Amino acid sequence: MNILKEKINVAIMGFGIVGSGVAQVLDMNADLVKAKVGRPVELKYILDVRDFPDSPYADKVVHDFAVIENDPDVDIVVETIGGAKIAYEFSKRALSAGKSLVTSNKELVAKHGYELLSIAKEKKVNYMFEASVGGGIPVLRPLMQCLSGNRVSEVCGILNGTTNFILTKMQREGLGFDEALKQAQALGYAEADPTADIQGHDACRKICILGTLAFGNHIYPEGISCEGITKITLDDMALAMAAGYKIKLVGRAIATEKGKVCAFVAPSLVPVSNALSTVDDVFNAITVRGNAVGEVMFYGPGAGSLPTASAVVGDVIDCAMHVEHRKGISWNDSAPERLESSDDLPFKWFVRTEKDSVPAVFAGKQPICCPDSPYNAYITDPMTAAQLTSAVGELAETAIRVFE
Amino acid sequence: MNILKEKINVAIMGFGIVGSGVAQVLDMNADLVKAKVGRPVELKYILDVRDFPDSPYADKVVHDFAVIENDPDVDIVVETIGGAKIAYEFSKRALSAGKSLVTSNKELVAKHGYELLSIAKEKKVNYMFEASVGGGIPVLRPLMQCLSGNRVSEVCGILNGTTNFILTKMQREGLGFDEALKQAQALGYAEADPTADIQGHDACRKICILGTLAFGNHIYPEGISCEGITKITLDDMALAMAAGYKIKLVGRAIATEKGKVCAFVAPSLVPVSNALSTVDDVFNAITVRGNAVGEVMFYGPGAGSLPTASAVVGDVIDCAMHVEHRKGISWNDSAPERLESSDDLPFKWFVRTEKDSVPAVFAGKQPICCPDSPYNAYITDPMTAAQLTSAVGELAETAIRVFE
Repeated sequence: MNILKEKINVAIMGFGIVGSGVAQVLDMNADLVKAKVGRPVELKYILDVRDFPDSPYADKVVHDFAVIENDPDVDIVVETIGGAKIAYEFSKRALSAGKSLVTSNKELVAKHGYELLSIAKEKKVNYMFEASVGGGIPVLRPLMQCLSGNRVSEVCGILNGTTNFILTKMQREGLGFDEALKQAQALGYAEADPTADIQGHDACRKICILGTLAFGNHIYPEGISCEGITKITLDDMALAMAAGYKIKLVGRAIATEKGKVCAFVAPSLVPVSNALSTVDDVFNAITVRGNAVGEVMFYGPGAGSLPTASAVVGDVIDCAMHVEHRKGISWNDSAPERLESSDDLPFKWFVRTEKDSVPAVFAGKQPICCPDSPYNAYITDPMTAAQLTSAVGELAETAIRVFE
Repeated sequence: MNILKEKINVAIMGFGIVGSGVAQVLDMNADLVKAKVGRPVELKYILDVRDFPDSPYADKVVHDFAVIENDPDVDIVVETIGGAKIAYEFSKRALSAGKSLVTSNKELVAKHGYELLSIAKEKKVNYMFEASVGGGIPVLRPLMQCLSGNRVSEVCGILNGTTNFILTKMQREGLGFDEALKQAQALGYAEADPTADIQGHDACRKICILGTLAFGNHIYPEGISCEGITKITLDDMALAMAAGYKIKLVGRAIATEKGKVCAFVAPSLVPVSNALSTVDDVFNAITVRGNAVGEVMFYGPGAGSLPTASAVVGDVIDCAMHVEHRKGISWNDSAPERLESSDDLPFKWFVRTEKDSVPAVFAGKQPICCPDSPYNAYITDPMTAAQLTSAVGELAETAIRVFE
């Protein structure tokens, strides 16, 4: 890119919820983007298989990626296609063509971030993805820059708005999981096929990105444990609350005592005294624990068109301000030997049992109980998954980790 | 500075709570600081009027600033002296000597930030102050970078841990202000002379820095309204809580409808549904509202030796990584004509009155009341301070703005 160019040209690939939000933000805030960058940042192309004849951007729509790839005037490509197929191919080609790339695509970053960053480095361009975790919440830059003086012991959070909405509905209104999911779908918070959200895959991709940035080696989603929220019951919630906990879907990446990293996604009992427990509805929050700062939390809208576009446009501005001086996001390739399974780490567990089938390990212990509940529950001492199985066996109806 | 130098040398000015924390963090995390920067970052001098014969850094202590100023090997100076007298002089001289400067000194940045940034720009060095607002909480970089695509409508927050601790103690334990202040002093959260905290001056400096960064012109503390918490009573708290609010000391910088900026510090009724209301004890939080992101919040320890040092060392690392390529923090000189007084902006007000002296404006309105309280309270429609005075006159025992 040539610093003497009068303006910076942007192409958006994928004109869906996020892509159209990016166009809108570039438009409505054009004056301040220009003031920050020092010259105009203009939308030149929108790549999509569809046409948008009624859109104010109709004349920018192209259907052939090669138009963008081969136009030397395109400086920054925004990838909001989603998925890791065509988005992966176009991302590689855009970087290889010497264009900086900005994305909100967590699946692609989690699966191919190392390779794409390597291409970006070789081509001396930027690859930025603040929007891939926490939507509009600033978290990757603060983690990499402001907190860079810390030895991070854990990064964790409520990373998926859909499941947090469902859990909040269950907790507050006593809706069952299926009914809460239906409401989420009716409100547009959950997709017709909600698998990626409710099974924890979306949160898993995000904790992989956070863990990778915090600890330096690429963590692939298939290499870590991931459990969704489909088995959580109202009985679990009531018993947990009676003991002072809310049940949240939490992604965690922990520096272990063995010098390894343990990353996983699982429903977790969060103490009501912890700030994460106050994060309700579709909001997200990410907590970073470091040996200097203690604990800080970033909170806000984890999804949505304009909030996610806010993060994308922040990256576009940063790319536009660094056309000559690449900002060095980078990490190392995966190191599976540095990963420790969540099964091997000791946690306290919340165990729910039938009232008349109490495992011997809890004999004499005062159970957590709720009026009218046919169940008892207990919080165990810290133990591994195998130790738990050996202690409570088939007698546990549910076992959920306690977040500390 | 020469990029071929084998290491980066740091001098710390002022070896108090924050300065000693910086030395400690640079020491305990030396390996990761080196890995981030690409070469060691070493502490060369500590400037203080005292000696520290028992400190591991005793041999680095100097008493004459000229030693640092004249040593070409010193790349980065950390100013943790505090105040705006000697710290101001040394800061100007350090920058003028071509050294990058990092500080946690909110008073100095709020009073002289524009001048010091101008010297930094002229000398092509960095002046960074992430630690000056929110202690260890990353907020200035996220505001400047991640949220740069937003037209900011407001930045606000709970910016002072001492007053938040006092208000939390009053709210939770029913302690009076004086007793809560004594406890804060006993725990080291408040100084022997607590004026700067309880009168709001510390929060005022911080909202000036935030408002300056958000809106582009230097806002000086003496140019805005600042009210502390000394008049808050337990009756106010109980009545506010009965209406669903907590009383917090809030700093706000608001983009007004006239295209101006209104910045002020004042006790405020924060709805319990707002995330800021959950910020208790010595914690701080900053909320940014923008036209793309909606609302995001940054939460964490707003003071303390190591948390504040975390932010300082993050800046030191950033300076060390940009020895050749200055990062362009800058803003414009003050523009008093762009400031709008908080007296001229309409707010809802919480008004407490004697039960038998209800102003005519509330006639027929259902008051907020608490059992056993000799008072009633009302929430008004939005009005300016003058309108409020004209409406309730001498009949109001207390009038506190409602935060929306």
